Amino acid sequence: MDNKWSAKLSRLDFLKAAAATGVSLAMPKVLSARAGAAEARPSGHETMIGVPFEARKRVKAAVIGVGGRGTFLLQTFLSTGGVDVVGVCDIVPDKVARAQKIVTDAGQPEPAGFTNGSHDYENLLRRDDIDLAIIATPWRWHVPMAVFAMEQGHHAATEVPAARTLAECWQMVDTSERTRRHCMMLENCCYGDSEMMVLQMVREGLLGEIVHGEAAYIHNLREELFGDVGEGEWRRAEHIGRNGNLYPTHGLGPVARCMDVNRGDRFDYLVSVSSMERSLSLWRDSHVKPDSPKGLERYDCGDMNTSIIRTVKGRTIMLQHDVVTPRPYSRINMVSGTKGTFYGYPDRIYLDGQDGDDWQNPDPFREKYAHPLWKRIGDLARKNGGHGGMDYIMAYRLIECIREGIVPDMDVYDAAALSAPTPLSEASVKKHGASQKFPDFTRGKWTEPRKEA
Amino acid sequence: MDNKWSAKLSRLDFLKAAAATGVSLAMPKVLSARAGAAEARPSGHETMIGVPFEARKRVKAAVIGVGGRGTFLLQTFLSTGGVDVVGVCDIVPDKVARAQKIVTDAGQPEPAGFTNGSHDYENLLRRDDIDLAIIATPWRWHVPMAVFAMEQGHHAATEVPAARTLAECWQMVDTSERTRRHCMMLENCCYGDSEMMVLQMVREGLLGEIVHGEAAYIHNLREELFGDVGEGEWRRAEHIGRNGNLYPTHGLGPVARCMDVNRGDRFDYLVSVSSMERSLSLWRDSHVKPDSPKGLERYDCGDMNTSIIRTVKGRTIMLQHDVVTPRPYSRINMVSGTKGTFYGYPDRIYLDGQDGDDWQNPDPFREKYAHPLWKRIGDLARKNGGHGGMDYIMAYRLIECIREGIVPDMDVYDAAALSAPTPLSEASVKKHGASQKFPDFTRGKWTEPRKEA
Repeated sequence: MDNKWSAKLSRLDFLKAAAATGVSLAMPKVLSARAGAAEARPSGHETMIGVPFEARKRVKAAVIGVGGRGTFLLQTFLSTGGVDVVGVCDIVPDKVARAQKIVTDAGQPEPAGFTNGSHDYENLLRRDDIDLAIIATPWRWHVPMAVFAMEQGHHAATEVPAARTLAECWQMVDTSERTRRHCMMLENCCYGDSEMMVLQMVREGLLGEIVHGEAAYIHNLREELFGDVGEGEWRRAEHIGRNGNLYPTHGLGPVARCMDVNRGDRFDYLVSVSSMERSLSLWRDSHVKPDSPKGLERYDCGDMNTSIIRTVKGRTIMLQHDVVTPRPYSRINMVSGTKGTFYGYPDRIYLDGQDGDDWQNPDPFREKYAHPLWKRIGDLARKNGGHGGMDYIMAYRLIECIREGIVPDMDVYDAAALSAPTPLSEASVKKHGASQKFPDFTRGKWTEPRKEA
Repeated sequence: MDNKWSAKLSRLDFLKAAAATGVSLAMPKVLSARAGAAEARPSGHETMIGVPFEARKRVKAAVIGVGGRGTFLLQTFLSTGGVDVVGVCDIVPDKVARAQKIVTDAGQPEPAGFTNGSHDYENLLRRDDIDLAIIATPWRWHVPMAVFAMEQGHHAATEVPAARTLAECWQMVDTSERTRRHCMMLENCCYGDSEMMVLQMVREGLLGEIVHGEAAYIHNLREELFGDVGEGEWRRAEHIGRNGNLYPTHGLGPVARCMDVNRGDRFDYLVSVSSMERSLSLWRDSHVKPDSPKGLERYDCGDMNTSIIRTVKGRTIMLQHDVVTPRPYSRINMVSGTKGTFYGYPDRIYLDGQDGDDWQNPDPFREKYAHPLWKRIGDLARKNGGHGGMDYIMAYRLIECIREGIVPDMDVYDAAALSAPTPLSEASVKKHGASQKFPDFTRGKWTEPRKEA
């Protein structure tokens, strides 16, 4: 078991793993005992808000986790032209070999490979020729790996969600402040074409003052969750023993940016209610044998989780999570203000005073309100692909910030705030929707506006 | 002031009215002192669930409130061909005269007119030649008038929302059970073409087991709210001193029917969060003088209110209210189950196992899943109009139930349950989203399924 990053899936195996101090439960060794209290508190260290990177000509990167997503990220970061990949790590040797070949095919020296069990990433991160650790492993490894990277003096960029508990959120923040290393969440949807256009519309006042938004991760993943490889190995386990919004950041990230969260506003409290669980069990019943390990699993996460966030300034966000019901994909991506409303899936816009009462196609607005990043490198992004180009923009922009020594677009406080709805929704759901306060991860610095891309 | 049904609008006038025991505050004289406790409790009387009307050849109706909506209802009930209008009442003499002419133009004798101040409806309701009182007055008069009607031995049918407080909900229920008179809410949207088709799809299992729904009243009413006649006279006042979902029933009614609420399931608890108030104030600032009575008003109701309801069986409903933001109209009308999802505005459907990941146009389903009522009288309904025919179907069906002596589709328990989100959301919003329990208005009878149209 020690060479696996995936968590075992059945309740029984979970208990066995706990008894054996198995891998999935070995991680708390790097977790501080600090509780996830709601109040701001001093860290004894300066904020990481507004802290620029140290400029450098190229970025030396280590990539941990080169499965489906990690491999794609590796390719995307390589395609930005500013990254030297010095090491790759995965528990599966074939995946490491594949990643090494991708790097040499790109004309770079073969990066060191680390594939000796679940903690070999520590040996990779102990190298001193790393600027940035890119983490694309199962969720419960994100914070342990990011924290270890920062402790070794590297910046960390982790896949979403960055953290699973409030304690993990605080651990990221505390470590980032103490080590003076950035810890960013790779929230690619914040760099989407439509999402950045909406941000630009908001900044230019087209929608007036923003009062409400809606965000979601609605993605029918039943088949993937039952796969024998990839996410199927560990992601279904998150539905056992947990009930809430397990994956809040893709929808929430862009809407939070439109509301200047951590840049003048802040998440204040959240309520959350889950429906009963049905769809994952039904899928299981019709696809696996009742007496198989999967057949014995019992899922706790309700089919649909709905949360409402209120910000300190009084804005609201309706936030949903449903990865099991037969429905088309949607992140909703809705922002509503005193002068108009934008809605995604499909994109549509309504402006106060327009002719007629129907939604408009926003295509005529796309050129005028294209975000500067998309204006500058949108053609490259579309060519390189990755969820419509958002992955490329995200990678390009992060590497650009490091190379030019400027302040990153998103920091550890964003990673913490966008991850926090998961534990807060779990706590709220357990208590019939009881209201949960967000911690102020910025320790009072959220009131300050910023100049940003 | 005594000849007005409308509430005065400014905070100052509200206080003055209270001091003078003005009209808007005269109503509590018919309110019981009973609190809105959450627990079921015995009434000492039998349930009204499943109680049929006494059959009669034609229905003698009194219509109270013949403004815009009441006049249209009068015409619609007349067009069903089974109603004799014996009396009409309004505080405005011209409206009564107009209503009387509508009745005589339809070939009936002139109905008695009642227009002598705000309590003349009591004189109309004291007549003994009435079967049904139809109430289309400002919201705060619904329960006092419906209760008075039942006390005189008449069935009552009130416009939405039936009640504004939990005490009013219980007063309706208690009075209905004691007097053995029905008290129905005229929730026309439950009779909409698409809404009834969805109900039929759910009943035939097309969407599988229903786990989640979404409902709303999103309707940009800023101009109407500031009108000098009609709803502008009183509805804006509801936004002063109240903050929550002021108008929940149009969206919630049809979704609740799809979930068998009060027929096998029941609303269990609700959480609710409002955004800040902006849009009504902005409209006021740009349309009225700052030192005018309207210019001095301060609105308390947030632009967008979002609530989440959970049922006892574990279904969830996301419920919204926004009548001030510039957005296209929507009641959402969404129902999601283990085999598929239906979404309104515009209507679309997704079924598990279909080709492709996109929403389908549901038109090919309309004939097969047309509700029996629409199959039977849909052509008449479309001809007579009224929100696409739903008003005609609702009126026709209610009159049919009375004439044939059968059980009404919706009863006082539905009126109470669908109205309750207003006071519960107000209470939740005040307490940062604190979870609120629904009373069991059925006193334990909600578990029983019913045979219904």
